[in-house]
Amino acid sequence: MLSDVDLKKKAVGEKAVEDIQDGMTIGLGSGSTVYWMLKRLGEKVQEGIKVSGVPSSVRTENWAKEFGVPLTDFSEVNRLDLAIDGADEIDPNFNLIKGGGGSLLREKIVNQAADRFVVVADESKLVEELGAFPLPIEVVQFGWELTAKHLESLGCNPELRKKDGDVFVTNNQNYILDCQFNSITEPEKLHEEIKSLVGVVETGLFFNMTNQVLIGEEQGVKVLSRDNPIG
Amino acid sequence: MLSDVDLKKKAVGEKAVEDIQDGMTIGLGSGSTVYWMLKRLGEKVQEGIKVSGVPSSVRTENWAKEFGVPLTDFSEVNRLDLAIDGADEIDPNFNLIKGGGGSLLREKIVNQAADRFVVVADESKLVEELGAFPLPIEVVQFGWELTAKHLESLGCNPELRKKDGDVFVTNNQNYILDCQFNSITEPEKLHEEIKSLVGVVETGLFFNMTNQVLIGEEQGVKVLSRDNPIG
Repeated sequence: MLSDVDLKKKAVGEKAVEDIQDGMTIGLGSGSTVYWMLKRLGEKVQEGIKVSGVPSSVRTENWAKEFGVPLTDFSEVNRLDLAIDGADEIDPNFNLIKGGGGSLLREKIVNQAADRFVVVADESKLVEELGAFPLPIEVVQFGWELTAKHLESLGCNPELRKKDGDVFVTNNQNYILDCQFNSITEPEKLHEEIKSLVGVVETGLFFNMTNQVLIGEEQGVKVLSRDNPIG
Repeated sequence: MLSDVDLKKKAVGEKAVEDIQDGMTIGLGSGSTVYWMLKRLGEKVQEGIKVSGVPSSVRTENWAKEFGVPLTDFSEVNRLDLAIDGADEIDPNFNLIKGGGGSLLREKIVNQAADRFVVVADESKLVEELGAFPLPIEVVQFGWELTAKHLESLGCNPELRKKDGDVFVTNNQNYILDCQFNSITEPEKLHEEIKSLVGVVETGLFFNMTNQVLIGEEQGVKVLSRDNPIG
C-alpha cells in the first residue's frame, strides 16, 4: 500500500502526463515523482501514443526502459517540446533548488532545451525563500578541496556529498558539494558568482526556466502557472 | 640528436628550474617544455633539494614519477609556491590560450593556486592578439551538441576534438570543443560569456595569472616579467 506522500507523488506524476501529446519529444527529469510520471507514460505508449524522451539521469533511463518509454538523445534532437522534472525547493517566482538526487547538471541541460518546463512536486517543496535546503553544486574531482574553500568565502559551509560511506560521484564523474546558505535572496546573482569559479561545473539554482508547477495536495493536484503563481 | 625546437624547449625548461628553491611546493604544468623542466628538476632532487609537486595531467604525473620528483595533491596542500606551465598563445598582457594538450582545467586549478606563475614557451607562442589558435573549451559529454550550438552563437565554429579517430576525453571525463575565434579582443569578457553556459566546465583563456614568461630563442632564454613585458 502506498503512503500518503507516495499517493500525492503518483497523482502529480500522472497529472503531468495529461499534457503529453502524440509526437512530442520530452525531457525526462529525475526523482520519485518522475517515477510515477514514467509509469503512466509507459501505459500511454502501450495505448499507442508516439513519444520519445531524453533522460536526465541513468536511473531515469533505466525506469524509462522498464516502462517501455522510447528514448532518444541530443545527437538526434536539439530541442524538446516539454520537460517534466522534480525540485527540492520552489520559491514564489518559480526559482528552484535542484540536485538533491545528484543529477542537477543533466537536468539543467535537458530542461533548458525544452520549450516548456513543468515542475512536479509535493507541497513541502514550496518555500518563501530558497536556501534552507543545502544548495548542491557539481564540481570537478580534481582540486575539489580548493573549490570548496572558494565556495566557503561566498558564505556557506560546503559538505562533500557521500553515499553509503563513499564519496558520491555524479553521472558526469564529478563530485557534489552541498552548501547551506540558509537564505538565498538573489538566486541568479549567487549562481553567477558560483559558476564563475574554476572547478565549478554547475549549480542547483534554476531560474527563468519554469513555466508551470504541479503540486500534490491532500485534495488533489494544484496547478501553478506563470500567470497564476499562487494557484 | 635534438632538433632546434627541442633544444630551445630544453633550455627554457632548465632555466625555469633555477627558480625552484628548497622546500617549495610546485605546480607541474603540462606539455613538452615541462618535460625538460621535470627532467632537470629530477636531477636537482637527486642532488638533495626537497620539493613536492602537484601535477596538472596524468602524463605529467607519469613523467614526475619517471624522474623521481615527489608528488602531493590538494588533499595535503592548498597553496603552491610556484607553478610552471606551457601555453599555446601569449599576448603582450600575458593573457594566454591554453589547452592544446587537453589539460586546461587541471592546469587552471593548479596555476590559480600558485603564488607565482611562470610560463615556459618558445617564441612562436608570442602573439599580438589571441585567437588564431582555436580556443579549447572543456564541456561535459552529456548534451555537448547543445553546448556547441550555444558556443556557435558567440561567433565561432566549434570542433569536437578527436584523437586517433576517437573522441578525445579529458582526465576529467569531459570533451574538448576547439573554437576558432580568429580575433579575441576581450579575453576576460569572452571567458565569462562562455563559462556561464550550461555544459561548459572551463575555457582555455587564462588572464590575471601570469607573473613571468620564459621564451626560448636562438640566442638563449628571454625573460619577460610583468614589469618588463617586452624583454
